[in-house]
Amino acid sequence: MQEQPISAGVITCKAAVAWEAGEPLVMEEVEVSPPQPMEIRIKVAFTALCRSDVTSWQSQALNSIFPRIFGHEASGIVESVGQGVTEFKEGDHVLTLFTGECMRCKHCTSAKSNMCQVLGFKRNGVMHSDQKTRFSLKGKPIYHFCAVSSFSEYTVVHSGCAAKISSIAPLERICLLSCGVSAGLGAAWKVADVSEGSTVVIFGLGTVGLSVAQGARLRGASRIIGVDTNPGKRDQASAFGVTDFLNPDEFEEPIQQVVKRITDGGADYSFECVGDTEMITTALQSCCEGWGQTVTLGVPKAKPEITAHFSLFLSGRTLRGSLFGGWKPKSDIPSLVEMYMNKEIQIDEFVTHDIPFEDINRAFDLMKQGKCLRCVIHLPK
Amino acid sequence: MQEQPISAGVITCKAAVAWEAGEPLVMEEVEVSPPQPMEIRIKVAFTALCRSDVTSWQSQALNSIFPRIFGHEASGIVESVGQGVTEFKEGDHVLTLFTGECMRCKHCTSAKSNMCQVLGFKRNGVMHSDQKTRFSLKGKPIYHFCAVSSFSEYTVVHSGCAAKISSIAPLERICLLSCGVSAGLGAAWKVADVSEGSTVVIFGLGTVGLSVAQGARLRGASRIIGVDTNPGKRDQASAFGVTDFLNPDEFEEPIQQVVKRITDGGADYSFECVGDTEMITTALQSCCEGWGQTVTLGVPKAKPEITAHFSLFLSGRTLRGSLFGGWKPKSDIPSLVEMYMNKEIQIDEFVTHDIPFEDINRAFDLMKQGKCLRCVIHLPK
Repeated sequence: MQEQPISAGVITCKAAVAWEAGEPLVMEEVEVSPPQPMEIRIKVAFTALCRSDVTSWQSQALNSIFPRIFGHEASGIVESVGQGVTEFKEGDHVLTLFTGECMRCKHCTSAKSNMCQVLGFKRNGVMHSDQKTRFSLKGKPIYHFCAVSSFSEYTVVHSGCAAKISSIAPLERICLLSCGVSAGLGAAWKVADVSEGSTVVIFGLGTVGLSVAQGARLRGASRIIGVDTNPGKRDQASAFGVTDFLNPDEFEEPIQQVVKRITDGGADYSFECVGDTEMITTALQSCCEGWGQTVTLGVPKAKPEITAHFSLFLSGRTLRGSLFGGWKPKSDIPSLVEMYMNKEIQIDEFVTHDIPFEDINRAFDLMKQGKCLRCVIHLPK
Repeated sequence: MQEQPISAGVITCKAAVAWEAGEPLVMEEVEVSPPQPMEIRIKVAFTALCRSDVTSWQSQALNSIFPRIFGHEASGIVESVGQGVTEFKEGDHVLTLFTGECMRCKHCTSAKSNMCQVLGFKRNGVMHSDQKTRFSLKGKPIYHFCAVSSFSEYTVVHSGCAAKISSIAPLERICLLSCGVSAGLGAAWKVADVSEGSTVVIFGLGTVGLSVAQGARLRGASRIIGVDTNPGKRDQASAFGVTDFLNPDEFEEPIQQVVKRITDGGADYSFECVGDTEMITTALQSCCEGWGQTVTLGVPKAKPEITAHFSLFLSGRTLRGSLFGGWKPKSDIPSLVEMYMNKEIQIDEFVTHDIPFEDINRAFDLMKQGKCLRCVIHLPK
C-alpha cells in the first residue's frame, strides 16, 4: 500500500495582492492552504512578469476578478504535496504551468494537441479540482490567476500544472521557460515549422516575438523582419536574429506593403505577437499567396474579433493559433531546460531587470512603459 | 527552325451573352478572334454551370462587367493554335482552366503553390496577354469570364489555361473536373489532408461540398457530417459518403453546438462550401480545439470579411483557404481524369441535368432554385 504524505498545515506568507484593476499591488500577509489531493505547494523562487499578467491586471479584455494574486511564469521548490501525489516530493525543482497536462484526456493522449480538457488554461480565479481558492486574507478569499499565482512566497498548483526540472538548472533564468520564451520558440518550431532559407516577419518584439526570432534563426531562416513601433527594440532585436527592423511610424505606406515589397510578394511566415487583432489582419496581408502562414500568439488587449478579407485565404494563406507554442507543458518543457543548459537556446538575454519581490510594482511600471523584456522578481530565500 | 502554325481567321458562332446582371442570357452571333501568340482556340464540346458563374452573373460580390460570356467548367477540342504554341495541336482534347499555370513563375516552380503569378484567376473580363477581349458583336467588345468563357461554340484561352487530356475520356462528364469536383477533392486531399478514421463536417452540399464528402470517404473518414438547409440534399448526400445529414432549420440550438455535441467537442475538419463568410465562423466553431482545421472553399456572395473570435485560434484551430483545391491545374488535373477512367472517383452522379445549349437559361434557373447539382450544357456538335 502506498504511503500517504502527511498533510501540511496552513502557511502564512507575503503575497503581492491586486485589489483593484490597474492599482499598484499591495504586499499582504496571506494564508496559503495545504495542497489538496493531487496538488503541490511550492516555495516560489523566481517569477517573471509576463504581458498577460499586466493585461489581466488592467482588466482590458478578460474577466475582472479581484482581489487576486497574479504571476504565472515561475520557478520554485516543492514544499509539500497533497494526497495521491507520487510524481513530486519535497525539495523537487519545478516550473509552474499556466496550462496543465492531465496525461489522460483525448487531447493529452493525442500527439496533435496541448489543450488538456481537465487542467487547461483557467480563467476564473480558482483551482481546477474544487473551484475554490487556496489563498485567504483574514478569512476572505484571494483569487488565483491561471491557477498558478506566483506573486506569493508560497503557492499551490495542481501537480499537472508543474514540470519537474533538473536541480542544477538556474531557477532565476529558466523561470522564463514557463511561458513567453517557450511560446515563441514553439510557434516557430512546432506551429509554423519554419524551414531553412525562408523569410519570416514578426509583429511585436517583446519576449514572445524575440523568441520567435530566435526560433526562426535556429531553423536557418534567411531573413527575419521584426516590426515594432518602439525604436528602442532595434538593438535587442538584432541580438535575437532579426535581420531587418521596421518601425511602422517611419513609413508613409502601410507596413504590410513595405514587407511585401522587400520580400517579393510577402513573407513565408508571419507572426502576430502584439496582442492586437487588427495586427493579425496586417500579418495575413504580409505573408505570401500560395503557402503564406500566419501564426497568432497574442492575447488581444481590446477587440477580440479577428477580421480578414476572404480572398486572403482563397489565395492560399493559412491562419493558425496555438497556446504555449503548441508544447505539451509537462512533457516538452524539461527538454527546453536541457537545451538551455547545453547552450542551444538563449534565455539570459531576455532578462533586462532583476527586481526584489518588494519592488514588484516597478516591474509593472517598466512593462507598461515598454522599457523591459523580462523583469525577474526574486522572492525571499 | 520551328514551323509556325498558320493563323486561323475570325470565326462567327453562337454564344450565350449576358447583357445585364441577373437578366437571362441571349443567344447571339459573335465573332471570335484567332488565337494570339501562346493562345489556343477551342471548339467547346460541353460546359457545366458552376455556382460562380451564377454569382458573378448576379454581380452580388464581384466586379460588374457586361456584356460578358460566362462559363468556365468546360471540355472541348482544339480548333487552332496561336504563334509559339507547341504543346497543343488541332484536334487535341482539353479541359479549360479558370486559373492557369505558366510553369515558370516562383509559384509554378514551387511545389507548395498553385497561385500562378502570370496566368492566375482573371477577374477583369479580358485576356492575360494583352488585356483585350477575343469576342465581339458588331464591332463591340464582349468580355470574358475567368479568361475562359465557355458559353460559346468557340472560345480562345491561353495555352497555360488548358489541360490536354486523354482522347478517350468522355468530354460530357470530365468537364466537371474543370472546377467544382476537383476543388472539393483537392480541399479534402491536398489542403486538409483528411486522415483515416477522422470526423469531417461539410457546410453546403452542392457539387463542391459533395466532392469534399467523396474525397473524405475515399480517405477513410469515419464520420462525414453534411449540413444544408435544402432538405432535398439528404439523398444525394448519402450517395457521396455523407453519414449524417443535418438541416439547421430542424434544430433549436445553433448548428455548431449540434456538431460539437455529436462529435465529442468538434470535428477534426470542417469545410465551408456555401460561399458565406458567416458560415466560416460557424465552421471554425464546429471543429475541435487542438488540431481542428477549417478549410474555406466558397466565394462569398455578400459580406467579404471573415470575422472570428481570437480564442478559436488560441485554442489551436487553423483556418486555411485554397483556390481550385490546391491543385496545380495543368500538372495535376490529367491525373484526376485518369482516376475517373479507372473508376476511382465518381463524377457521373453529379450530373443531374443534360441541357442543350439553346436552353442554357434553364440551367441558371435550376441552380438559383437549388434543384440541380451540375447541369451539363451540350454545345452543337
